[in-house]
This record gives sequence, C-alpha cells and structure tokens, in this order.
Amino acid sequence: MHPLVSRILQGDVRAVAKALSVVEGESPERREVLHDLYPFAGRSHVVGLTGSPGAGKSTLVDVLLRHLRKQDLRVGVLAVDPSSPFTGGALLGDRVRMTAHSADPGVFIRSIGTRGGLGGLAASTEDMLHVLEAYGCDVILLETVGVGQSELDVLTVADTVVLVLTPGSGDSIQTAKAGIMEIADIFVVNKDDLPGSDALVREIQLMLHDKRSYREEWKPPIVRTRGAEGVGLEALVAAMEAHRDHLRESGYWEARRRRRLEADVERALVARFRRHFATSVRESEEWKQVWASDERDPQKIADDLMVLFPWMTL
Amino acid sequence: MHPLVSRILQGDVRAVAKALSVVEGESPERREVLHDLYPFAGRSHVVGLTGSPGAGKSTLVDVLLRHLRKQDLRVGVLAVDPSSPFTGGALLGDRVRMTAHSADPGVFIRSIGTRGGLGGLAASTEDMLHVLEAYGCDVILLETVGVGQSELDVLTVADTVVLVLTPGSGDSIQTAKAGIMEIADIFVVNKDDLPGSDALVREIQLMLHDKRSYREEWKPPIVRTRGAEGVGLEALVAAMEAHRDHLRESGYWEARRRRRLEADVERALVARFRRHFATSVRESEEWKQVWASDERDPQKIADDLMVLFPWMTL
Repeated sequence: MHPLVSRILQGDVRAVAKALSVVEGESPERREVLHDLYPFAGRSHVVGLTGSPGAGKSTLVDVLLRHLRKQDLRVGVLAVDPSSPFTGGALLGDRVRMTAHSADPGVFIRSIGTRGGLGGLAASTEDMLHVLEAYGCDVILLETVGVGQSELDVLTVADTVVLVLTPGSGDSIQTAKAGIMEIADIFVVNKDDLPGSDALVREIQLMLHDKRSYREEWKPPIVRTRGAEGVGLEALVAAMEAHRDHLRESGYWEARRRRRLEADVERALVARFRRHFATSVRESEEWKQVWASDERDPQKIADDLMVLFPWMTL
Repeated sequence: MHPLVSRILQGDVRAVAKALSVVEGESPERREVLHDLYPFAGRSHVVGLTGSPGAGKSTLVDVLLRHLRKQDLRVGVLAVDPSSPFTGGALLGDRVRMTAHSADPGVFIRSIGTRGGLGGLAASTEDMLHVLEAYGCDVILLETVGVGQSELDVLTVADTVVLVLTPGSGDSIQTAKAGIMEIADIFVVNKDDLPGSDALVREIQLMLHDKRSYREEWKPPIVRTRGAEGVGLEALVAAMEAHRDHLRESGYWEARRRRRLEADVERALVARFRRHFATSVRESEEWKQVWASDERDPQKIADDLMVLFPWMTL
C-alpha cells in the first residue's frame, strides 16, 4: 500500500492534503495512490449543493458543517469553482474557512478551481472524493460555486443533490432550465423570510405535483431555511438522511455506484483510444493518404480511417 | 446538394436560421447539411470576444456590428451562453438585438445556450460557424456571455480572441488565471474613462513585456475603448484586421484550420469508439467476466478489457 494511503487511514490530515494534490495532478504516483484508495471508495454520503450565485450556498454549507460536526460526524467539503479562470474567487473564502476549522481534524475543506485532468472536472472530483472517503468522512459536501454546465456535470457524482433557491431573486422555476430541476433530490427555499417565499414554495409544489413519475421513486421534499440564523437546519439534515436511507434501502445506492464505475471504465478506455490516435493513427500511412485528398468533412475522413479499426463494430 | 445549403448560398436568411437549427439538433438531415457545407468552411474571420461579466462585451459587440455594417461587411453573431441552465439569460437580449437588425440581411444573430450535442459546445459552435460561412459572412463575432471553461473551449475555434477588461472591476491581471491571458490576441481596456484605466494598461504592458516569446509571432496590442460611445472602435477593427492579415501571411491561418479539422476527425472517431463501447463491449463475455470479479479500480478493469481491442497500441 502506498504510504500516503496508509497515513490517511490512520487519520493523518496532512496526508489527506498531500493525496488530494497527488490525485489532482499528474505525478507518476497518482495511479498507485488511486489504486490503493479504491477499496475504501463509495462509503461516504456525498451531498451536492447547487443554486444561483447569491442564493446563500456558502453560508448554508458553513452552518451545515457546524451542525454535522455537533453530531460528531466527520465532514469533508469540496468547493467546485470551474469559473475561476477569471476570478480565482473560491480560493480566498476557502482559506478563511480552513482557518476557522484548522484545529478540527473532523473537517477537511478543499476547493477545486481548475479544469481537472483526464476526463474533466467530474472525473477529478471523483478522484478527490476517494481520498476523503478513505479518510473516513461520513458526509462530503460538494459545493458548486458557479452555475455552468461543468458544475452540473460534477453533481452527477453526488448521492443527494440539494438545489438552493431564494425568493425574489428571479429564481423562478419557469426560468430555470429542465436539467437542474430534474437532478434535485431536495429543494431548499433559503432566506425564507424574504417576500415571495410562500409563492416560491407553491411554485415548486406545483411543479412536483405535475410530474408523473419520480426519479428513483423519490419525491423531493421542500425545506425552508434561513442559513445565516441556522433556521431549518435540522429539517435539511433530516431530509438528507432520509434520501440517503431511501437510496440504500431501494438498491439505488449500489446501482448508482455501479453506473459511475462503468462510466469511469469507459472514460479510461476512451483516454487510451485518444493516446492510440495521437501516436499510431497520426503516424500511419492511411492518415497521410487521407490528408492528401481534398476531403474536408471530418465524418468522411473518419469513414476513410475506419480501415485502421477493423475490430470496431458500430 | 441539400436544398437548405443551396438556399443559403443564394442568400436566403430563413434558410440560415433553419440550417442552424438542423446542425444544432439531431435530425437525420444534419449529416447531409454539414457535408454540403464543408466546401465553404474556413472563409470567414472568426473573432471571439470574452471577458468578465460587466466588462461591456454586449455593448461592444453591438457597436462593432454597426461599425462593420457601415463598411458593408456581412456579419454573423453567435452569443455563447452555456451557463443558461439557471438563467436562460442570453435569449432575451438576443431577441431584442435581432429585432433591431431584423430588416438587414447583412446581419445574422443567434445564441447558443445549450450544452451542444456530440463533442460539446465547441463542436456545435463550429458546426454553426459553417452555416454562417456558407452564407458569406465576412466576419463572425463569437460573443461569450459567461467566463467558464466551456466558453474558453469555444474560443479555440476563433481566429482572433479579443479579451475585454475594465478598470477597477477587480479585473487585475494578477487575479486572472494563465489560460485566458495566453489565448488573447487583442487586449481591450473598455470603459477607459473610469479611474484605474492607465494602471490597467500599464499592467498589461508589463505582463506582455515579461513574455519571452509570443504565440504565433504576434504581440497582442492593447486597444482602449468606450464601447457605449463608440470611442476606439476604429482602432479595434484595425487591430482585428491586422491580426487576420498576420495569420494569413504567416501561414498560421491554414495551420490553425488544419489543426481544427484534425481535432474534428479525432472527435468523430472517439464518438464512434463510444458507440462501439456502448454496444459491442457492453454485450461481450469479457465485460461480464470483469464485473464478476471484485476489482473496483477503473484502470485495472480497463486493463482487463484490453483483450477486446487487440489493434490498440498505446
């Protein structure tokens, strides 16, 4: 076993920090560390929190973190901010929060601001989850800072997706696209003392009522919170636990993990295919011949190159 | 030739709108339309405009559009907004702008708000460019609304990347990540009557001065503008034209198009590999055997499955 992994299993926080950097990077030991982490994968309850900027996600994550710590649960936080090419914004808040919890080995906070290596942000988020799972985190909060497609992709690795909405922020259900509503397992109406919160709750109820069937037989509950004052936190934690128990009892917990592993295997094979393309295909006689022609339609060129892949049935 | 393509070549605006929907979608005629468009690809000067929200990109694009129209150039605008799962924001502004130019067949405006089909947003943006190229657009403005990784990816299909910065918006060069600075061919300091604009210009100058070599032998100029008043527009257009001429004379124009076509061919083959995976691989005996074992490391599982790809050399 890689020494970093055994140190993580012994509860060494600094090994966790080091291992996160290793799996995020491209060092030669990356593969070995990941391999030794897999037996411990899939243990934590991964909760993704998403919502428009200004919905109060960071505050909510902070009070949630304190709440879970009071129950003596070990908690990890991964803050995902792929929009940072311009701002690098998450990092400062991250450091502030880390300082607040730095004496507590039961909390680990890290932000993911880069694009991620092979397979994109979702893949590198998953690799980082494995480190926190081996560290024994009971709950891992996956906080998405932005609202782009990359963040939505990242949420596919969560067990429970919490969508945080705020009244009167133009966060109307009608304006939100289908994708995000469909992956929400819990709706949070935050800052529920603001005008319009009853209307927002009714709007969500109506939308849920109109659904003919629920994904994985789970009807998403609506929880009203005031993150800054800690109001509604018990209800939110109870909803998270209820969803986790539902997944476990129904078999979806295992099914999701299996599906994710299958996707990882596909990603690994696609990466190998790309390497094969970059080396063997680009060096081949067929490749040179194709470019000698006038053809400029990539699909037709791909057709011509299929002679290089006699085993590929479509 | 597909009737839509011949109508586009005859200057039929409605055929352009229809063809954009066809290549963005997944209808059976998509392939045929794309194939007939390829001979006309690569003609337009594609200018990508990016920058933080609030930097004044939309206003700049609008005045730029009017400016280019005065020179009797045919102009296309593609507004890229992958962050729209929450807001759907680009579409309203898009409709407002389309109305303003609706009587002018020399302008075509369209927004791309979805994730994009096969190969992601960059690929579908490129497909849409081909429609506007066949329509005879001299210049195509690719306006990115957000600042995420998807937008940066989209900019790889532009010939000229214009980075719009604004003084005092926290848009300091230091806070911006490397990626975006490296792809900028022209720096625009917009709203240059705001305090701090001299400092921002000096900061960019210093950053450029520190560079040892310039990408494609082009030293990015800095243009100061006040988009709302049209100040600096001539200089910006001149810089765009100078960059286009530089690319053409140096051979990088052709080299970039070749590189993009190679990337398209790779994408097409990867898509075929994925289809092969989804059908043949998932149905195979080897696949079943692998899952019967306890192995949970996707790389090790991929190793075991390599027997299915005897032609793949790594």
